[in-house]
Amino acid sequence: MADKNFDLETTISALARNKRYAALRDVLVTMNAADIAALFAGLEQEVLPLLFRLLPKELAAETFVEMDSDAQELLITGFSDSELKEVIDELYIDDAVDIVEEMPANVVKRILQQADAETRKQINEILKYPEDSAGSIMTTEFVELRPHMTVADAIKSIRRSGIEKETINTCYITMPDRTLSGQITIRAIIIADDDDLVEDIMEQHVISVSTMDDQETVAQMFQKYDLLSLPVVDKENRLVGIVTVDDAIDVLQEETTEDIEKMAAITPSDRPYLKTSVWSIYLHRIPWLLILMISATFTGMIIMSFENALAATVALTAFIPMLMDTGGNSGSQASVTIIRGLALQEIAFKDIFKVIFKEARVSLLCGITLAAANFLKLMLIDKVSLVISLVVCVTLVITVFVAKIIGCTLPMLAKKIGFDPAVMASPFITTLVDAISLLTYFSVASFLL
Amino acid sequence: MADKNFDLETTISALARNKRYAALRDVLVTMNAADIAALFAGLEQEVLPLLFRLLPKELAAETFVEMDSDAQELLITGFSDSELKEVIDELYIDDAVDIVEEMPANVVKRILQQADAETRKQINEILKYPEDSAGSIMTTEFVELRPHMTVADAIKSIRRSGIEKETINTCYITMPDRTLSGQITIRAIIIADDDDLVEDIMEQHVISVSTMDDQETVAQMFQKYDLLSLPVVDKENRLVGIVTVDDAIDVLQEETTEDIEKMAAITPSDRPYLKTSVWSIYLHRIPWLLILMISATFTGMIIMSFENALAATVALTAFIPMLMDTGGNSGSQASVTIIRGLALQEIAFKDIFKVIFKEARVSLLCGITLAAANFLKLMLIDKVSLVISLVVCVTLVITVFVAKIIGCTLPMLAKKIGFDPAVMASPFITTLVDAISLLTYFSVASFLL
Repeated sequence: MADKNFDLETTISALARNKRYAALRDVLVTMNAADIAALFAGLEQEVLPLLFRLLPKELAAETFVEMDSDAQELLITGFSDSELKEVIDELYIDDAVDIVEEMPANVVKRILQQADAETRKQINEILKYPEDSAGSIMTTEFVELRPHMTVADAIKSIRRSGIEKETINTCYITMPDRTLSGQITIRAIIIADDDDLVEDIMEQHVISVSTMDDQETVAQMFQKYDLLSLPVVDKENRLVGIVTVDDAIDVLQEETTEDIEKMAAITPSDRPYLKTSVWSIYLHRIPWLLILMISATFTGMIIMSFENALAATVALTAFIPMLMDTGGNSGSQASVTIIRGLALQEIAFKDIFKVIFKEARVSLLCGITLAAANFLKLMLIDKVSLVISLVVCVTLVITVFVAKIIGCTLPMLAKKIGFDPAVMASPFITTLVDAISLLTYFSVASFLL
Repeated sequence: MADKNFDLETTISALARNKRYAALRDVLVTMNAADIAALFAGLEQEVLPLLFRLLPKELAAETFVEMDSDAQELLITGFSDSELKEVIDELYIDDAVDIVEEMPANVVKRILQQADAETRKQINEILKYPEDSAGSIMTTEFVELRPHMTVADAIKSIRRSGIEKETINTCYITMPDRTLSGQITIRAIIIADDDDLVEDIMEQHVISVSTMDDQETVAQMFQKYDLLSLPVVDKENRLVGIVTVDDAIDVLQEETTEDIEKMAAITPSDRPYLKTSVWSIYLHRIPWLLILMISATFTGMIIMSFENALAATVALTAFIPMLMDTGGNSGSQASVTIIRGLALQEIAFKDIFKVIFKEARVSLLCGITLAAANFLKLMLIDKVSLVISLVVCVTLVITVFVAKIIGCTLPMLAKKIGFDPAVMASPFITTLVDAISLLTYFSVASFLL
């Protein structure tokens, strides 16, 4: 797909330069909004407003949603009030909220001025929920039915209001006080008889979330229960919105990116890399580098305290990097496996002893294999003395064991006390394991040499 | 949610022990299949078949799909032929295929014997596609309409066949030779007039994938285009199946787990950690540990070749771990950011110079900050000589710079030549950066001391 777009980019540029607007429009309407937005991102800014105006109303709004916030701001600035109103009228509420959240205050003011009163009210409603809550990612547009409706009434109601709802695939049944009493799929409605009552064919056991629930929990429920949408209720069980699966996928991907960044000792950011300033990337990375650098002081202190031993046998120094790297790698294998398992809810705190026992056995197998390979290499290739070989290999086994046990235990303990397990990944564990492996190394050396 | 389940587990166990089957059934039918499966996983194996038989047919099949393969095998072994047939008849084809793929040969034989001829044919059809292809994750059950049908005909056809299709939310329009000619949402059908023709209201520009396309590409298209289902066509553009969004989410999560494992130098596996044997975990981890350990030989060689310098100034040794760790952390910050950006398609190979320029500036900012902090610490706290402080700090700036440039470049080059960028993550880069930082360290030291 991606390669095809690049050819198209050249064509569209040429058509725009030669003012072939009819042809341009014909080409663009065959395309999907996400592809048009990607295409626009590669063109010169000047032609953007012109090309955008060629799109039919609905496709224009869909494309607008897919563009990045800089391009959106550029377009809004160029829009007349009536053009802006036209785009906003076509947007789904949750998309409108996403755009409002990214725009500077003066643009937000213009958007809210052009939105009709009902839309403005709904946008403000969603904006009041905290970031990363279910309320902040929901849409307030959904199909609402009543229990006593017949299927024929329900279909009439869907026909009347369904065109502007984000989804009609699942409809929600509420009582007059708006409390949620059931849900029904469009499939069940189509298959039912016209005079069946909605309350007789609806599902009564509805999975719902609360407005303040964490968006990650919400997104994971989509995966667990294979949902297409999920109702969001307030404290009184009144239905206030729904979350749709497309937004749940975005949340899952965002949260995973955050976990991966934390594992690599980066403070997470939610802007794409190429759009993030150097200064901002610096600020997200330097705190952890500083903390980890300073905590490496301990390894330095350990080495200094064994200065005499090292001066006598410089050969020992040569194996420090290998021991440290192997310890770090072993530890991060364990920690990353456990962190991902916790994130996917495959592992829970109650499994901690099972996990430790498993890692203990794995680490002994790994440690012994590595030590054996290393022993052969030391004796046959490096030709160092038997005692030094033994010191290195014994240290290796102990280091791998300690690294894997720490690597699996810390993320689980972190989770238990309410910390983010992802922060307990490689860099943090490496620093700890480094210190322990150096202490082991020198202790074994003092004992055997 | 999770905590609630544990309480329920005790209750269900007690009800089962006391043979309160009516009560058990009443409790279970209020629950969702995924929760029942999670609950069953915590109970003793003996009560499983009994509890399973209490479930209504449809819920039983849904629960069966959510169970792990060991429990599935246990149940199938206990099933009579007619019980097995009942479960299989209720399964969606793609779920049946997933189960068949995990079962030993004798169980597969029994399943295929009990499936009706059409189901058996469809299962075998999907099984022939390679693992990780679009064909292997699709289902062959979808609603197929013809262009000349009226909306009333279409609704009649959906009512007749829709109950056993995995989704009716998007219907596909095919020609008599089964080539795909359009798609239509159930919303469009409901809103249209009874005598509208399907071909007049269908979308003609349909995004589709080929049976042999990679499942990761397919899953990413769901995110990019906000899809609920995606048609799969063969080489002649004949519609052979559809992929649904629930399976796309599973693929996205699986592929991310694989990436994370590769970044931590683990050969990916697709079994949950707690279900994987020690031996298998060992086999997935040891190759990389061995390779990385052996490649650390170079760092050892570098240290040995500067043996004399080190014997004279053991203080230099004390800073080796800090330099190596900081280099490794800096490199993995860059590599992990780029690897994730590539996976999310936010970064492409054509951005390589933008990326390098950005990382160069970030690395200088980071390097200078770290060097300044370190210089103060060395002079004021460690009270080492000015020359050694300078050696350490100059090395720090160079190491961070080199680490970040290598960290961002290698994954992009790997992607370009068709390798997996995730393999170019921290452990690999750490080893390379270690060697470079040690060489820098000793060269600067020889020059300044």
